[in-house]
Amino acid sequence: MLILGLDPSLTCTGWGVVRSVGSRLSHIANGQIATDSKAPLPDRLLHLQDAVSAVIATYAPDRAAVEEIFVNKNPQSTLKLAQARGAVLVACARGSLPVAEHATRLVKKAIVGTGAAEKQQVQAMLKVLLPGANVAGADAADALAVAIADAHLGGGA
Amino acid sequence: MLILGLDPSLTCTGWGVVRSVGSRLSHIANGQIATDSKAPLPDRLLHLQDAVSAVIATYAPDRAAVEEIFVNKNPQSTLKLAQARGAVLVACARGSLPVAEHATRLVKKAIVGTGAAEKQQVQAMLKVLLPGANVAGADAADALAVAIADAHLGGGA
Repeated sequence: MLILGLDPSLTCTGWGVVRSVGSRLSHIANGQIATDSKAPLPDRLLHLQDAVSAVIATYAPDRAAVEEIFVNKNPQSTLKLAQARGAVLVACARGSLPVAEHATRLVKKAIVGTGAAEKQQVQAMLKVLLPGANVAGADAADALAVAIADAHLGGGA
Repeated sequence: MLILGLDPSLTCTGWGVVRSVGSRLSHIANGQIATDSKAPLPDRLLHLQDAVSAVIATYAPDRAAVEEIFVNKNPQSTLKLAQARGAVLVACARGSLPVAEHATRLVKKAIVGTGAAEKQQVQAMLKVLLPGANVAGADAADALAVAIADAHLGGGA
C-alpha cells in the first residue's frame, strides 16, 4: 500500500510517499512544490495541481491523506491555504485517489504519541520512523507525517 | 471581448458570459454548476473544475472575473468556498484566461450605482442591462454581475 501525504500551501506544498506493509513503513520519496510569488494566483494554483498530478503519475499511490483545515488567526493566510488545498485535492480526484483527512492532533499522536507534540518532536520521530529518508524540508516533513499517520489510522477519515 | 464571470461555491458555482463592445453589453450565456453534497470533497472540486473548463471550451472567453474573497462569519463555509474557488481558478489558468478580482462593493457599484446595493437591486438591474437574458438562478446572476462589472472596470483588478 503506497500512501501519498500532502501538506498543501500556496507558497510551498509538501508531499511524501510511504509504503505501508502490515505494521512496517518505508520511505519512498518526498519533495516540495514551490510557486512563484510574483505570478498571478490562478497560475500558481495550476502549477501546484500539475506538480501534484506529476507526483501521482510517477509514484502511483493507492490513496492520499491531508490534514484537516481550519481557519487560523490570519484570514488572508487561511484563504490562500484553502485555495491551494482545493487545487491539490482536484489532482487527487483526477488521479482517482481516495483522500483521507486527519486532524492535526491525531497526526501528532500517531507520530509522537501525544496530540500536543511540537513540530520539532514530529520531525525527530520521522528520522526514527523512516530511517535514511532525506527530507526536503519542513513542508515535506509534514506531508510524510500525515502519510505515516494515515498508515496507522488505516485511511479512516 | 467576451468576459466570463464566475461565482465560485462548492454547492453551486454560477457562471455567465457577456460580450462587451465599447460601452455596449450583451448576454451570451449563463448557468449554474451544482455538486453532489454526498460525494467526497475532492470529487466535488473536480466536477466544478471540469464543468468550468467545459464552459471555457464552449464559449472561448477572452478573460474571466471573480469577486474578491473574504473570511465570513462561518469558518466552515469560508473554507468550502475558498477550496471551490481554488479549483475554479485552475480551470481559468488552464484555459489561459487572465482573471481579474473585483471587490463586491465595486461590483454592486458598477451594476446599481452604489456599493451598498441589495442583492435584489443587483438582480433587477441585470434585467435592464441584459434584456432577454434567462438567468439560471441567484448564483448565475452573481456571475453575470461580476462579468458586467469587469466590462465597466476594464478587467482591472
